[in-house]
Amino acid sequence: MVIEEIQGGVCAPTGFKANGIHCGIRKNKAKRDFALIVSEVRAAAAGVYTSNLVKGAPVIVTKKNLIDGYAQAIICNSGNANTCNANGIEIAEGMCALVENAGGISAKDVIVASTGVIGQQLDLTPMSEHFGELWSGLGDNSNLAAEAIMTTDTVRKSVAVSFELGGKTCKIGAIAKGVGMVCPNMATNLIFLTSDVAISSEMLQKALSEDVKTSFNMVSVDGDQSTNDTCCIMANGLAGNDIIKDKGADFKAFCKALNYCTVKLSRMLAKDGEGATKLIECRVTGADRKCTAKAVAKSVIKSSLVKAAMFGADANWGRVLCAIGYAGVKVDVNAIDVSFSSANGDLPVCKNGFGIEFSEEKAKEILSEDEVIINVNLNSGSSKATAWGCDLTYDYVKINGDYRT
Amino acid sequence: MVIEEIQGGVCAPTGFKANGIHCGIRKNKAKRDFALIVSEVRAAAAGVYTSNLVKGAPVIVTKKNLIDGYAQAIICNSGNANTCNANGIEIAEGMCALVENAGGISAKDVIVASTGVIGQQLDLTPMSEHFGELWSGLGDNSNLAAEAIMTTDTVRKSVAVSFELGGKTCKIGAIAKGVGMVCPNMATNLIFLTSDVAISSEMLQKALSEDVKTSFNMVSVDGDQSTNDTCCIMANGLAGNDIIKDKGADFKAFCKALNYCTVKLSRMLAKDGEGATKLIECRVTGADRKCTAKAVAKSVIKSSLVKAAMFGADANWGRVLCAIGYAGVKVDVNAIDVSFSSANGDLPVCKNGFGIEFSEEKAKEILSEDEVIINVNLNSGSSKATAWGCDLTYDYVKINGDYRT
Repeated sequence: MVIEEIQGGVCAPTGFKANGIHCGIRKNKAKRDFALIVSEVRAAAAGVYTSNLVKGAPVIVTKKNLIDGYAQAIICNSGNANTCNANGIEIAEGMCALVENAGGISAKDVIVASTGVIGQQLDLTPMSEHFGELWSGLGDNSNLAAEAIMTTDTVRKSVAVSFELGGKTCKIGAIAKGVGMVCPNMATNLIFLTSDVAISSEMLQKALSEDVKTSFNMVSVDGDQSTNDTCCIMANGLAGNDIIKDKGADFKAFCKALNYCTVKLSRMLAKDGEGATKLIECRVTGADRKCTAKAVAKSVIKSSLVKAAMFGADANWGRVLCAIGYAGVKVDVNAIDVSFSSANGDLPVCKNGFGIEFSEEKAKEILSEDEVIINVNLNSGSSKATAWGCDLTYDYVKINGDYRT
Repeated sequence: MVIEEIQGGVCAPTGFKANGIHCGIRKNKAKRDFALIVSEVRAAAAGVYTSNLVKGAPVIVTKKNLIDGYAQAIICNSGNANTCNANGIEIAEGMCALVENAGGISAKDVIVASTGVIGQQLDLTPMSEHFGELWSGLGDNSNLAAEAIMTTDTVRKSVAVSFELGGKTCKIGAIAKGVGMVCPNMATNLIFLTSDVAISSEMLQKALSEDVKTSFNMVSVDGDQSTNDTCCIMANGLAGNDIIKDKGADFKAFCKALNYCTVKLSRMLAKDGEGATKLIECRVTGADRKCTAKAVAKSVIKSSLVKAAMFGADANWGRVLCAIGYAGVKVDVNAIDVSFSSANGDLPVCKNGFGIEFSEEKAKEILSEDEVIINVNLNSGSSKATAWGCDLTYDYVKINGDYRT
């Protein structure tokens, strides 16, 4: 199966338009803060959400709207999370109503999301005043939508692929935003996917729920799980393939293309973590069980001390061992091998749980790259897992020491 | 019961001497790196240790030596954790042998500890060469020992109290070191306690094991649990009280005095967290169960985002709610009240899970103090818990970005 990367983001699949504008929720007029993605026709839809008990009002409304497995539009603002507000549900439903009033799409077919500060009331006025502008500008504008959902993100996050199902060209597109409060247990922050594949709502939900386990759920920037994490997909069927209704070859092909997009976005989310200067990938192999591999990989990329060492390009592998040791899963410490690698080569630093001689100079060279891999071989089986994180820097503290005021 | 704070640290109780010198493990000659605490007579002893699967060699040796419930000396070096080294056990046992050879105390009655970098071989030579100096300088030198166990600690941590048991004056003294890789699950980093109370080894272990649940186990600096956490106590009986053999009034009095010391040290450890500018105390009340209160308190003080907000004196209470929401315990979000307090007053910021109006100016005033309290009332019962942490600062990153090299 050939998966080809293409341009266009969420507008790459047939029948999707998008837009992103500044409506006034954010003070900075140069920053877009209001996004819309619309499918030409009603689409099968699925979502995964934060497992935080404190849920943003938009999460509650979106879950309710997707109960029937269909949607046609995604509306999202940045600058305010609409969370912990007494009138939150009312505002989130008001955002859905804007789409119904202007576009003839039922409010119940709208996915709504908000991202930004928690606990400040969100005013519907700037959104209702600028909805006409947002709607009339719908087009091949995935990048504008991607910009409008950014908070402290420094780069737009977008991906699209094309692949074939039964001779028909199919596409998946996506945009995402990170980049703080990222430690998903169900999905990470905001990720909106579109596809023109014909697939039942049930199989679409299965594909998405399974996918996040090895993609977004393996990303951590700061260990704080957001209240608003939402990952939604709409698949409108306009590619004309035979509709996917079961776990056959077409389903597998779709899942593979989906995973290509989500892993790429996962890496982007980690690499653009707040204040980050580099992507840290932890590849765990040789685990007795999948869950062991996942727990170890996540523990390593979540360790503040490992993250700070990576910022300093310091080959302090003892901190990696330490993080493995408190991962909460059983491992044979005396079987663990660790190496650091990057575009500059690979350097073993620990063998059978003990330190080995290595060149500090070579280590510095490897760890100074902007994508660094921590390889952990547990030498106890054949299960593996990969997790993505980033370094801990002065800028993370700076960004978060005064985010709200 | 009257607990009076006194001077003298680990040397305050009758029959204890201490010393701390520079032996050469650390390059900086002004920094003491070798400590010894000795009891005049063999003492009942107890310990709690890291639950990290990767354990420092000294932890393994100390556990073995304390199986019989007795000890007479504590030897400790800083600058090297003696962890993940192929010859680690041999070196740790070698340190115990130094005490036996010079002082006639059985090597099996020695508590040994090391703190510093993981995975670099520890050379016994500087310690054996300087042991005579360390031994001959034993005296009322608790402060020198406290200095010698410091790593990135900026202040010595020491406490001592006196209290009465059956008309006899009894004392407890302690020294401790933090301050990174602090997220204990059994004990935190290195804490050495001494007492002249007469108590059985069994009751001493009971007292210590129970105590750490509400003291050291409620401290987190960076969420990284060390490989070398050790908290040990020796009680030599020289106070002359009737020996404590069961859970009677004397045991309770002893536990109360012990907890006075350990809570005080817990606050010191948190306040001197790496790079910290302030102590953050999270007081949870109104929980349905003790474990709920503890989980919520720890989740709040561990949140990187809460910690960074406290550094910026930013009343971003939404992050507190967020951390409660992912604490992994069931709480009624719509019953939660939050306030911030310090020496500058108390300020409610959230009522029933929703934000309320507050003065940003007053908030800044409260959060600019060097001891800040986050009060969380779950309004669902009568259980409570307190946890201690610190803010996340540029300096944490600086200290840990280049700790090893």
